[in-house]
Amino acid sequence: MEKFDIHILGCGSALPTLRHNASSQIVNVREKLFMIDCGEGTQVHLRRSRLRFNRLNHIFISHLHGDHCFGLMGLISTFGMLERTAQLHIHAHPELERILKPQLAFFCNGLPFDVVFHPIDPAKREIIYDDRSASVETIPLKHRMPTCGFLFREKPTANHIRRDMIDCYEIPLYMINRIKNGEDYVTADGKVIPNEKLTFPADPPRSYAYCSDTVYLPRITEQIEGVDLLFHEATFGEDNAARARKTQHSTAAQAARIALEAKVKRLVIGHFSARYEDEKVLLEEAKAIFPHTMLANENLTISI
Amino acid sequence: MEKFDIHILGCGSALPTLRHNASSQIVNVREKLFMIDCGEGTQVHLRRSRLRFNRLNHIFISHLHGDHCFGLMGLISTFGMLERTAQLHIHAHPELERILKPQLAFFCNGLPFDVVFHPIDPAKREIIYDDRSASVETIPLKHRMPTCGFLFREKPTANHIRRDMIDCYEIPLYMINRIKNGEDYVTADGKVIPNEKLTFPADPPRSYAYCSDTVYLPRITEQIEGVDLLFHEATFGEDNAARARKTQHSTAAQAARIALEAKVKRLVIGHFSARYEDEKVLLEEAKAIFPHTMLANENLTISI
Repeated sequence: MEKFDIHILGCGSALPTLRHNASSQIVNVREKLFMIDCGEGTQVHLRRSRLRFNRLNHIFISHLHGDHCFGLMGLISTFGMLERTAQLHIHAHPELERILKPQLAFFCNGLPFDVVFHPIDPAKREIIYDDRSASVETIPLKHRMPTCGFLFREKPTANHIRRDMIDCYEIPLYMINRIKNGEDYVTADGKVIPNEKLTFPADPPRSYAYCSDTVYLPRITEQIEGVDLLFHEATFGEDNAARARKTQHSTAAQAARIALEAKVKRLVIGHFSARYEDEKVLLEEAKAIFPHTMLANENLTISI
Repeated sequence: MEKFDIHILGCGSALPTLRHNASSQIVNVREKLFMIDCGEGTQVHLRRSRLRFNRLNHIFISHLHGDHCFGLMGLISTFGMLERTAQLHIHAHPELERILKPQLAFFCNGLPFDVVFHPIDPAKREIIYDDRSASVETIPLKHRMPTCGFLFREKPTANHIRRDMIDCYEIPLYMINRIKNGEDYVTADGKVIPNEKLTFPADPPRSYAYCSDTVYLPRITEQIEGVDLLFHEATFGEDNAARARKTQHSTAAQAARIALEAKVKRLVIGHFSARYEDEKVLLEEAKAIFPHTMLANENLTISI
């Protein structure tokens, strides 16, 4: 199966600790890398991951709190020193361009590549990226400032061809891709072999939803229904439910309730408050509601 | 002896690596902390050092390359979350204020403390900070943009009083500090005991010079003559002497020549290029010229 991996580079919340980095993830879809959020230090954590910098062309920023975007300048500046030439696309609230442009002009004068800003309207659900392998859709969230999550959907893949049928009908090489893509095969003596007989169905397209930062927001369950993996913020536990409401974050139990309602396959929780020395309590609270839950952690890679 | 410690938080050069952080140091003079430079990630490295955030009130920025200042926003933002109320003073080229102000307005709205900018003219040698314990003087340097180093000079301390003399003349408690500060003592029967007889001379005031980034600049030796510790950048070795000239950095041998000329007591070299997997070669090149050389390293503390 082709790659669809999530690499957690940072899963702490606003106050950095020695245990967790500021928010950032890499989504690897068929060897194309997409970054979600870029907190301070992300470039170093990306280097530690040993993922290849030059496969990263798109960065999606959920919202403009510092712990989700303070790493951008360092990352861009380093890409410049490494003599990157490919455009770097940043999808974010339009305010980010206004804030970053003067910094880029001052610190990254003569950058050998273009930084292309793509404004997002976080209040709107729309497809903001689309290629042959995947699409990315915004998930409107509710936090202390305009915020959206991101829904990555893999494009359907071609059917698998049956090796035994290739041999049986002596199917020539040039026909293989056409059959994978749905054509029937006509033999030399004019016999039509229907596609269903020649192929297994493709793997169902996979999907990943990133929802951070946000209050408990049941309306998102419709949009993320049935995703293979949901990352949902769980800044607090039940002991801080009031604080979660006040700061417009979620508790682990609320993240689990979203996962349950949306019938997702797996849940990974993160964006942990610095006050938890050990996030096991968050895991237990979530698992009591949605058993297929795991804790995010730095250097964790989840294959979908 | 009272504290005069240098804590290296980062001693890499522009391209961050997994071995070295971007530039930052803490100078602890009698429990007052001064930061020099603040590359990306500094707040986390400061936390790792276990130094107390609230003892830091002054930050000195040598020049406005990203690897010396990209950590400021994260640090300030975290200080805000920790509910700091004391003013934070930033001494830097005036352009920094122009660049940071819009970011502070956007990301740190409602900060519970003031960030006070103090413009530096890096071309001028002048005292930019002065209190009872120490003064800080700029050291004009030469790099690809306006840059200065910083010379920390401890203020003279009081003489040490001789315990045996206290007993001998039954000197009352209230006189101790006055004698330490130079007064003679008059006994009950009117005899004058001269101060020299009652005290040992104070420890000579200590000093620290930070010179980074810079080309080899022999004119600084006059200003930093005899300092107890010199931090001098040594981005390259002799194998890259031409590159050092071109990028306006120094080699390890040049750093050592400065130390030798200036008759400093000890030299610590840093700001290592990412190309050196092991800086021993730099150490050897420097030691051949100035034996009292050591390599900077993350988490290294040097007591003066």
